[in-house]
Amino acid sequence: MTPRVREILSWYGADNPGVLTNLARMMNSGRLKGTGKMVILPVDQGFEHGPARSFAKNPDGYDPAFHFQLAVESGCNAYAAPLGALEACARDFAGEIPLILKINNSDTLFSNKSPISAMTSNVDDALRLGCSGIGFTIYPGSAARKDQYEEIRFAATEAKKAGLAVVMWSYPRGEQLSKEGETGIDVIAYAAHIAAQLGAHIIKVKPPTAHLEQEAARKVYESQGIKVSTMADRTKHVVQSSFAGKRIVIFSGGEAKSTDDLLAEVTQLAQGGAFGSIMGRNAFQRPKAEAIQLLHKVQDIFAGKN
Amino acid sequence: MTPRVREILSWYGADNPGVLTNLARMMNSGRLKGTGKMVILPVDQGFEHGPARSFAKNPDGYDPAFHFQLAVESGCNAYAAPLGALEACARDFAGEIPLILKINNSDTLFSNKSPISAMTSNVDDALRLGCSGIGFTIYPGSAARKDQYEEIRFAATEAKKAGLAVVMWSYPRGEQLSKEGETGIDVIAYAAHIAAQLGAHIIKVKPPTAHLEQEAARKVYESQGIKVSTMADRTKHVVQSSFAGKRIVIFSGGEAKSTDDLLAEVTQLAQGGAFGSIMGRNAFQRPKAEAIQLLHKVQDIFAGKN
Amino acid sequence: MTPRVREILSWYGADNPGVLTNLARMMNSGRLKGTGKMVILPVDQGFEHGPARSFAKNPDGYDPAFHFQLAVESGCNAYAAPLGALEACARDFAGEIPLILKINNSDTLFSNKSPISAMTSNVDDALRLGCSGIGFTIYPGSAARKDQYEEIRFAATEAKKAGLAVVMWSYPRGEQLSKEGETGIDVIAYAAHIAAQLGAHIIKVKPPTAHLEQEAARKVYESQGIKVSTMADRTKHVVQSSFAGKRIVIFSGGEAKSTDDLLAEVTQLAQGGAFGSIMGRNAFQRPKAEAIQLLHKVQDIFAGKN
Amino acid sequence: MTPRVREILSWYGADNPGVLTNLARMMNSGRLKGTGKMVILPVDQGFEHGPARSFAKNPDGYDPAFHFQLAVESGCNAYAAPLGALEACARDFAGEIPLILKINNSDTLFSNKSPISAMTSNVDDALRLGCSGIGFTIYPGSAARKDQYEEIRFAATEAKKAGLAVVMWSYPRGEQLSKEGETGIDVIAYAAHIAAQLGAHIIKVKPPTAHLEQEAARKVYESQGIKVSTMADRTKHVVQSSFAGKRIVIFSGGEAKSTDDLLAEVTQLAQGGAFGSIMGRNAFQRPKAEAIQLLHKVQDIFAGKN
Amino acid sequence: MTPRVREILSWYGADNPGVLTNLARMMNSGRLKGTGKMVILPVDQGFEHGPARSFAKNPDGYDPAFHFQLAVESGCNAYAAPLGALEACARDFAGEIPLILKINNSDTLFSNKSPISAMTSNVDDALRLGCSGIGFTIYPGSAARKDQYEEIRFAATEAKKAGLAVVMWSYPRGEQLSKEGETGIDVIAYAAHIAAQLGAHIIKVKPPTAHLEQEAARKVYESQGIKVSTMADRTKHVVQSSFAGKRIVIFSGGEAKSTDDLLAEVTQLAQGGAFGSIMGRNAFQRPKAEAIQLLHKVQDIFAGKN
Repeated sequence: MTPRVREILSWYGADNPGVLTNLARMMNSGRLKGTGKMVILPVDQGFEHGPARSFAKNPDGYDPAFHFQLAVESGCNAYAAPLGALEACARDFAGEIPLILKINNSDTLFSNKSPISAMTSNVDDALRLGCSGIGFTIYPGSAARKDQYEEIRFAATEAKKAGLAVVMWSYPRGEQLSKEGETGIDVIAYAAHIAAQLGAHIIKVKPPTAHLEQEAARKVYESQGIKVSTMADRTKHVVQSSFAGKRIVIFSGGEAKSTDDLLAEVTQLAQGGAFGSIMGRNAFQRPKAEAIQLLHKVQDIFAGKN
Repeated sequence: MTPRVREILSWYGADNPGVLTNLARMMNSGRLKGTGKMVILPVDQGFEHGPARSFAKNPDGYDPAFHFQLAVESGCNAYAAPLGALEACARDFAGEIPLILKINNSDTLFSNKSPISAMTSNVDDALRLGCSGIGFTIYPGSAARKDQYEEIRFAATEAKKAGLAVVMWSYPRGEQLSKEGETGIDVIAYAAHIAAQLGAHIIKVKPPTAHLEQEAARKVYESQGIKVSTMADRTKHVVQSSFAGKRIVIFSGGEAKSTDDLLAEVTQLAQGGAFGSIMGRNAFQRPKAEAIQLLHKVQDIFAGKN
Repeated sequence: MTPRVREILSWYGADNPGVLTNLARMMNSGRLKGTGKMVILPVDQGFEHGPARSFAKNPDGYDPAFHFQLAVESGCNAYAAPLGALEACARDFAGEIPLILKINNSDTLFSNKSPISAMTSNVDDALRLGCSGIGFTIYPGSAARKDQYEEIRFAATEAKKAGLAVVMWSYPRGEQLSKEGETGIDVIAYAAHIAAQLGAHIIKVKPPTAHLEQEAARKVYESQGIKVSTMADRTKHVVQSSFAGKRIVIFSGGEAKSTDDLLAEVTQLAQGGAFGSIMGRNAFQRPKAEAIQLLHKVQDIFAGKN
Repeated sequence: MTPRVREILSWYGADNPGVLTNLARMMNSGRLKGTGKMVILPVDQGFEHGPARSFAKNPDGYDPAFHFQLAVESGCNAYAAPLGALEACARDFAGEIPLILKINNSDTLFSNKSPISAMTSNVDDALRLGCSGIGFTIYPGSAARKDQYEEIRFAATEAKKAGLAVVMWSYPRGEQLSKEGETGIDVIAYAAHIAAQLGAHIIKVKPPTAHLEQEAARKVYESQGIKVSTMADRTKHVVQSSFAGKRIVIFSGGEAKSTDDLLAEVTQLAQGGAFGSIMGRNAFQRPKAEAIQLLHKVQDIFAGKN
Repeated sequence: MTPRVREILSWYGADNPGVLTNLARMMNSGRLKGTGKMVILPVDQGFEHGPARSFAKNPDGYDPAFHFQLAVESGCNAYAAPLGALEACARDFAGEIPLILKINNSDTLFSNKSPISAMTSNVDDALRLGCSGIGFTIYPGSAARKDQYEEIRFAATEAKKAGLAVVMWSYPRGEQLSKEGETGIDVIAYAAHIAAQLGAHIIKVKPPTAHLEQEAARKVYESQGIKVSTMADRTKHVVQSSFAGKRIVIFSGGEAKSTDDLLAEVTQLAQGGAFGSIMGRNAFQRPKAEAIQLLHKVQDIFAGKN
C-alpha cells in the first residue's frame, strides 16, 4: 500500500472499510497500481450507440470476452460494462480485474429531450458478479434530473452498505443547455461538483472546452480570472471543483480520434491533475495489440513516464 | 447431452445450474433435441391481435389445447403463451413439453405511440405452472423503454434466482422509428444487443430487412462494409451483435406468408447462423397436419437435413 | 406420455401443474421411463454414516461426480443427495437427470434417543440447483416428531408452491419402538401412511419384516387376517396403506447385501406392487460397471422384463 | 491467473462469479499466490481462550493491529478474526490482505457438554468490513449440532448470494466422543465430509491421529486397509473424504509446539495433499520476526520449495 | 477537539462519523471534557435491586429527575438509565448531558443460575430520547451467553448504523464460576476482551481482584509473570486485554463503600490506565452536595489533578 493510495483513501472518511477495500483494489490493479492514477476500460457503447457503430471497426469487440481480455492484458485498473456483458464472462475472468457494473443505460433508438437512463441492474447483481463498484450515469441539465438523482441516491446507499464503490458518469445534457454547453468548462465543473455532492467516490466527466455556457457563471469566471484557456487549466479547475481534488476525477476519451490528438489531450489532462482516463471507443475500436499499445501510452503519461 | 448443447450452456457462466437445467430442457426436447437449434411455438396472438384475427382461419386454435397438441406433436422445443392459455392446459400436458410463460402482453384495443406491454403474470406463476422460462416483450425505441427495461430487470432477477430461463422478445417500435425502421438491420441488430445486455438467455427478433434506419449507423454499415444484402448476411450480423453468437438468437416468422416464402426465409436464417425460429401464426393458422408438416420442414432446415 | 404416467399424475389433484411436471420428469427419465416405476440413486450415506463407511469399499465414490455418472449411465429416474454434493456437480450435469435435494440430514457422530435431522438446505437451493424435488427424512416414533413434521410442513408448502415434488424418507425410530419394531410391518405401514398424510408425493420406506410391534395393531392384523408372511404380502399392505396405492411408494435397499438376496427382495417388492427402489449403498459401493449391471437388473424386475 | 487456480475454481460450479472472485483473491494473495495452496492466520484465540492465555507470551498480540501486520508481512493468503478485531483495524489495512470474518465464537468461561458457538456477527458486517469470506465453527458430535448446522445454512446462503466465500472450522466435540476421538482419523474425515456437504468452500480441520473412534468405522478402516499410520496417509484420507479432493481442506496447527515438530507435521500434511495450514497460536505467540520466519517456512513447504 | 480525543476516535476506524460524533459528545461533556477520561453516572439499581434497596438511603433518588440533576451538576460525561427513567425526564433535560439508554435489565425477584437480562428497550427508543448510546449487560460465563451475545449482536448492528455508541457492561457470572471468580483478574480481563470482540465501543467491568479462577489461565499468569498484585497492575492488564488499550474501558464502583476506600481504589484504577469510572450507588445514595463533591474528587483523580 503506497502512501499516495493511503492518502486518497483518507479522503473517504464516511465510508466503511469495505468501500475503501474496493477503492484500494482498483487503485492497486494493473500497470498504474499504487500511483493513485487510474485507467479504466468502459464498454457500454454497444448499449448506448448500437453494436455496429461500436464494434464494426474492430469486430473482435462483438465478443464480450475481448473486452475483458483487453482490460486485463493492457493492465487497466478496472473494467466497466452493463449487466449482460459482465454476466457473459465474469465466471471465466473471476478475480482477474476489478469490475464495475454499469447499473443504468440508455440507447439511441429513442432520443429524449430530457434524457434519463433505465436502471438495468442493481447492487445484488454487482455482488453476485464479484464487482468492486457500481457505475451510474446522471444527466445534469435534464428535466428528469430529480428522478435520476433519487435513483442513484438509493442505489448508492445500498452499494455503500455493501462495501461497493460508487462511480458516477456525469454528463450534462438537457433542454436548457446548448450542444456546446454540454462540454463547456462551467458546466463540466458544475457536473463534477454535483456528482461529488451526490456521494460519488469516483467521478467521470468529459474533457471540457473553454466555452462558458451560463451567463451568471461567465461573469465570475471572467471577474475572478479563472484560467480556462488550456485543457490543463480546465482540468485543474474541474478537479478543484470536486472537493478541492479530494475526489477521484477521471476523464472520458470522448469520440474516437487520432492517436496523436488523443495522447496530446491526455497529456494536458495529466498536467491538470486528472486522476486518470476512462477510455472506451478509442481503445476497443483498435485491434488488440494497437489498443494495448495506446492504453500503455496513456498509462505512462499518468505515471509520469513519458 | 451433446457437445454442442454443453458448449452453448458454457456461455451462461453467471447463471446457476437451475437456469442451465431449463435451457438444457428446451434444447433437449422435440425433434431438434441435442442440436443446439430450437423451434418454438408461441401463441400470444389472441391477446395481441384478438381471437378472430388469430384463430378464425383455423378455428381449432380457439382451444388452447390445440396449441399444446400442435407443439408436442410437431416436436417443437418449447411452447410459449400468456397466463390464461397455460393455466387452461398445463395440468393435462404436464411434462410433455417445456413451457415459456409470456409474462407481459399488449392488446390492440388501445394503440400507444409509446408502446409498453402490461405485466400479466410473474415468476411464481411460471413455477406453479411448471414452466422452464419466462418470456417478456421489450419495445426498444419506445418512449416507455425505461419502464419496461426496469420491469424485466426485476422479473429477470427473480427468474434467474429460481432457475428459470429468460426469453426476450425484442421488438423495436416507437415515435422516432419509421415503420420500415422497425425491421431495419441496424435497428434489429441493436434490439438484439440490448436484450443481450439486459441479461436475456434467449433473444427473439424479427427477420431484418436491408433498410438502414439511423443515419449514424448507416455511415458505419457503409464505411465498414457490413454485408446486409441477403437475409443470411443480415442474420449473421444480428447473431454477431448478440455477444458474438454467444447468446441464443431466434427469429419470428412474422406475418403469415406462403409456405415457400417462409421456408426460403428460414433457409436463409439457418444459413446465417440463427439458432432457430419462433413461429406462431404461420403454424397455428394452418390445419394441424399441415402445420406439423411445415414445422417439421422448418426443423429439418435448422437440423441441416433439407 | 404413457397412460400409466397420466394415471399416476391424476392422483395428485391438489397439486399444481409444476409439481405434476416434475413428477412426470422423474417418471419419464431413464430406462424405466413411462412405466410409472422408479429406481432412484440416493447418496446421503457419506453424511449419514461417514465417508469411509460409505465409500472405502469403492473409492470412486468419494467423488460426487461418480454418483452423478452412475445415476445417468445406469438409467436411473433421479439422483438424490445433500446440498454439498449437488453443488459440486450440478453445473456439469445440468439437465442430464432429475435431481432431488435432500434438505435435512443426520450424522452418526451424535446419536439421539429422539432422532431428528438438521435442516441443511431449502427450497430456494433446490430451485437454483435445478432440482425436480426435495427430500426430507421424518422419524415417526421420535419424541421430536412434532418438530420434524412441522419442518416438513413448511418446506413442503414452499416446495409445492414452486412446483417441486416432495419426497419423504419415513424411518420409524424412537424411544418407544424396539429395534425390531423399526421395520415391523405394522410400523412401516403406519410410517408410510403418516408420510402420505403429511402430503408426500413420493414415499420411501424400508422393506418391512413380519414382526408386529404394537399390541393394539397385532390384534387387528391377526383378527382381520392381514397377510404379512411374504415380502410381497407386506409390500402390498404398505402400498395399500398409502392411500390404496395412490401414492408412489418406493423401498430402500437397506444394508449392503449379496446380489442374489437383493434381487430376490426386489422381486418380492415388485410382486407386491412397489413403485420402485431407492438404492444407495448396494449400488455405489460396487465398481461402476457392476453397479450399472445391478441397477439394470433391478429396473428390469420393475419393468416386468426378468 | 494460474492453471491450478483456475482448476480449483472449476470445482465450485454452483457458485456465482462473486464467490469465485473472492476465492481467487485468497488464492492470489501473499507468498503462495497462484499455487492453489494457502496459509491463513486466524486469531480468535483471545475470544476462545482468553487474552492472557493467548497473548501474554508475546504481548504485542494484545493489539489487533499486530495480527494484521503479521499476516501482511508474512505473506499469508488471508487473515481471519472475530468482529471486534476486524472493526479495530479494517480501515487502516483496507485492501492489504483478504479478510475472513469469524461470525461465531465460543469462550471458555462456560464449558458446554453440547458445545455451540454464539453468532457474533453476520454477512452484512463482512461486506461493510471488506471481507472476502465468513468463517463459522461447527462441532459435529455436539447434541446442539442441529442448531449450528441450521445457523450456518442460513448464513452460508446469504454469504453465497453476496459473493462471499464460506469457510468452516469443523471441530468434532460432544457427549459421545472421547477426548482422543475428537482428533481420531475416522472422526476428522467425517467432520471434513460434513462441512463439504453443508456447502463449505474451504474446510478447516485439525491434524488427525491414527486413533479410530467409532466401532462401525474401525471395521471398515481395517477391512478396507485404509492407511492411517502416518500423518501424510491420514491427510490424504481427509482430503479424499472432502469430495475426492475437490474442496479446499486446510489444517490447523493445533496447540503450540516446537518449531521442529510443527514443520515436521506440516511437511507430512503437504505430502498428504493438504491445501495449506491455518496457523494461529504457533505463529502469533512468537515475536514477529520469528513468526514471519516460521510462516515462510510453512509456506515454502506447501510451495514445494524446502 | 483535543489531540487526545482525536486519538481515541481514531481507534474506531470501522465506525461511521455518527458513532464518532456520539463518542466525541461523551468525551467532550462535563468536567473531564477533552481529557479522554470519563465519569458516568448509571442508575439502573432501582430495576436491578429494587427501589428501597436503591433509594431509601437518599430518598431524593426515588425521583428520576434527581439523577439527571446530579449527573449534570456534578459534571459527569454521561448519564445511563433504563427506558422509564429516561422517558420521565429526557424532555426536561434535553441537550444537557449525553444519555445512554440501558436496553436490557435484570431484576432480583427471580434469580437465575444462568443469568440473562431482558431486553427492555431498543435503538429506536434511544434515538427518540436523544441518546448518544445504548448500554447492554452481558454475563460471560452464563449458560445463556449464546442468547445474550446474539441479542447484542443485533442491537449493536442497529445502533452502529444509527450512529449510536455501544456500551457493554461485561459481568462474568455463571454455573462454572465461583463467586470469587466473578471478579478474578483472569476472568475480568477475559470479560473485557469478549466485549471488545463483540464490537463494544465502551467497556464497563468491575475492579478485578488478584484471584485467578481458571487453572489454564493461572499457569500462564504465573509463567509469564503477569503482575496482578495491585489494583493498578490489574487495571493495566484489563486495559491491555481490551485491544492493547484501544478501547475505552471504564470501571464500576461496585458495592457502596467508604469514601476513602473508594478514592483509594479510583486512584489505583487511574494509575493503571483506566479511562474512567461508572459510579452509581456510591454517588446517588449520598445527598446531592456530598455526591457532587465525591464525583468531583473522582474526576480530579482521572484528570490527574489530585
